Amino acid sequence: MMNQLYGNAVVGQSGGPTSAINATLSGVIRGTSQNYGKNIRKLYGMKNGIEGLLREDLVDLSAFFDGSTEKLRLLEQTPAAALGSCRLKLPEPIGDPAFYERLIAIFRKYDIRYFFYIGGNDSMDTVAKLSAYLRTSDYKMRVVGIPKTIDNDLMGTDHTPGFGSAAKYIAVTMQEILRDCAVYRVPAVTVVEMMGRDAGWLTAAAALGRVCGGAEPDLVYLPERPFDPEQFLGDVKEALKRHPNVVVAVSEGVRLSNGRYVGEGVQSGAVDIFGHAYLAGVGKVLEQIVREKIGCKVRSIELNLPQRCGAHLASATDLRESVGVGRAAVRAACGGASGVVMSIQRKSGEPYRVFYSQIPATTVANQIRRVDDRFINAAGNHVTDDCCRYLLPLIQGEVRSVFRKGLPVHLLID
Amino acid sequence: MMNQLYGNAVVGQSGGPTSAINATLSGVIRGTSQNYGKNIRKLYGMKNGIEGLLREDLVDLSAFFDGSTEKLRLLEQTPAAALGSCRLKLPEPIGDPAFYERLIAIFRKYDIRYFFYIGGNDSMDTVAKLSAYLRTSDYKMRVVGIPKTIDNDLMGTDHTPGFGSAAKYIAVTMQEILRDCAVYRVPAVTVVEMMGRDAGWLTAAAALGRVCGGAEPDLVYLPERPFDPEQFLGDVKEALKRHPNVVVAVSEGVRLSNGRYVGEGVQSGAVDIFGHAYLAGVGKVLEQIVREKIGCKVRSIELNLPQRCGAHLASATDLRESVGVGRAAVRAACGGASGVVMSIQRKSGEPYRVFYSQIPATTVANQIRRVDDRFINAAGNHVTDDCCRYLLPLIQGEVRSVFRKGLPVHLLID
Repeated sequence: MMNQLYGNAVVGQSGGPTSAINATLSGVIRGTSQNYGKNIRKLYGMKNGIEGLLREDLVDLSAFFDGSTEKLRLLEQTPAAALGSCRLKLPEPIGDPAFYERLIAIFRKYDIRYFFYIGGNDSMDTVAKLSAYLRTSDYKMRVVGIPKTIDNDLMGTDHTPGFGSAAKYIAVTMQEILRDCAVYRVPAVTVVEMMGRDAGWLTAAAALGRVCGGAEPDLVYLPERPFDPEQFLGDVKEALKRHPNVVVAVSEGVRLSNGRYVGEGVQSGAVDIFGHAYLAGVGKVLEQIVREKIGCKVRSIELNLPQRCGAHLASATDLRESVGVGRAAVRAACGGASGVVMSIQRKSGEPYRVFYSQIPATTVANQIRRVDDRFINAAGNHVTDDCCRYLLPLIQGEVRSVFRKGLPVHLLID
Repeated sequence: MMNQLYGNAVVGQSGGPTSAINATLSGVIRGTSQNYGKNIRKLYGMKNGIEGLLREDLVDLSAFFDGSTEKLRLLEQTPAAALGSCRLKLPEPIGDPAFYERLIAIFRKYDIRYFFYIGGNDSMDTVAKLSAYLRTSDYKMRVVGIPKTIDNDLMGTDHTPGFGSAAKYIAVTMQEILRDCAVYRVPAVTVVEMMGRDAGWLTAAAALGRVCGGAEPDLVYLPERPFDPEQFLGDVKEALKRHPNVVVAVSEGVRLSNGRYVGEGVQSGAVDIFGHAYLAGVGKVLEQIVREKIGCKVRSIELNLPQRCGAHLASATDLRESVGVGRAAVRAACGGASGVVMSIQRKSGEPYRVFYSQIPATTVANQIRRVDDRFINAAGNHVTDDCCRYLLPLIQGEVRSVFRKGLPVHLLID
């Protein structure tokens, strides 16, 4: 029977950090520990993903956690890949079989029969290629990908683990910024720049105050629509007529109709105090446009890394699902699945219910899921109520992290 | 007897927002409601500080809160001045007595006998000037200032209400950024820019991981020491020898030995995609220096407004003291004090104990308290253990804010 493959398992983390990627690692640890003695003997962690595996830099996670739920709870509240990460893209199996044989020699040495890889787009490409190669090999190993990305831009899943926490960080921070901006009566524009190079999901989350009894930014610009500076100026002027404190949410990835990123300028000619050239984000660019063309007080805020690592503000729903999808991956692999990526499917919106399923890795790899048309308003300068309804369940619940001496406790795996 | 002045009270908020300024407002409300019928009949709030008072834009806080502790609790967890703020600096009493007579006519109209002003440096100047003028007037009113500033740069107080919450926000966020930066093995420098134009207290808080079992940035630069770009490059190169992920904390206010702000460049010559001129902060400037002179991966993060409005991460100690100092101000005024500013005095460090006292407004107004010499290391690139011991009690305790539908509830006073 196919599900009677017996041996060790290995798990790795890859791509950019999120606040929930360690919750998924915890789910894999929890899942494998339940399967100890049945299919999986021991769970290894690869340090820095595939790169660490190639160096045989493995840590014995079964021994490190040794059934300690306290350690697992601390792991779940720790942001950024506890095993370390990498950005290695695997070669095509046909082009470089020696690379894959080198991997298989390592799998064989450690008797690894289950391979779990937590990551984004590129990591699911790793899952697709590795499992494709294995189909041509006599080495039996099951390969399961587990998605994570704050960008929410993977195909085949209702949303991605890690997104809900980043969305909650953005939604809460936006509420606080809106309060801050409301204290003065002088006309002022504040531009807040969110991550999201190709998809506007994170920026859309800035509007969630609308359905939570809070405030919302006046304008929201996503990369799914071409950015027109003239329309932007018109939008801001209109908003300033309504009230003095205008707040704009914008995605780092907005582009002009000619395809150039708005934030890509400021490269030549720009010099700082030491005469150095300069690079800036879209927030700074829009700030300068407002300063020059409208002339009121203006500032920009780039939410930057805290969006993806602000674990103290994680969504309890996201962490729960991130653990759940990790466990589900182990269940799927023990049941015989390979070459698949786990996904979250929404059974119903109200009440919010999900289940985990498997999709072929090839449908996920190197694809981008953009914000639906029905989630963006006709003017292209805000999101719709439908969008808020889709996002709302994903930020529900607060994680009351364990603090020590005033700071959250993070678990390091050494 | 002097303490038998009977009438109404007014409270205003002024200067930049903090996460705790409404906790102090709550303290004044709690304090006056205890004194109802004794000295204070009713408490008004001025919208947008003195500016609103001049427009007679007053709100009846006694009626609005009506003894509701639930409303007061929500007020305490709401960032940024709930009454609105202003940045109006009062004229010299000698130069413009008509201005003060106009104020006194308004006080007389509303029978205001107690004046509480929550603010920073400039607001304490308002307290000093108004009380000086009142000494020459036959109108009897008591004026008490209550400090707030995230900058912690007021004289005569161990620390300022609002600072502890901003420091906690910075310390926690720095822990998360340090985790995020640790996931890759490629050499990389991350520069994190904190607020603090003249004093480095906030930037110093980035190092608190040292005494909390966490991590700390490799380098910390405060405005109290001249910034030497050559030393900075040497410091970073040394740090890169020790480990690949170097994190630098820097205050927005650092200056070169010639007195120029490091972040003041990038003004002339710099153009963005639309050909506009450009302004940047010190973080971006240091990022560019590292890129050019060291050539490794580098990025900068400006913590920006969330430092001062990230109330979901407020320090419980700060909020408790902020309420306490508001109550103490009412007690002081009812006891006859005027022309004073409330202060927090540290009775002992371990265990941490404070008491509230009064200092003359003139000793606070327009002064700046810088980081002590003993809190900065000899090389001028980090803080000392003494500094961490001073800061540590101020960030203790988490505020478990009330959330609704995934977002913190903020109280608006209309």
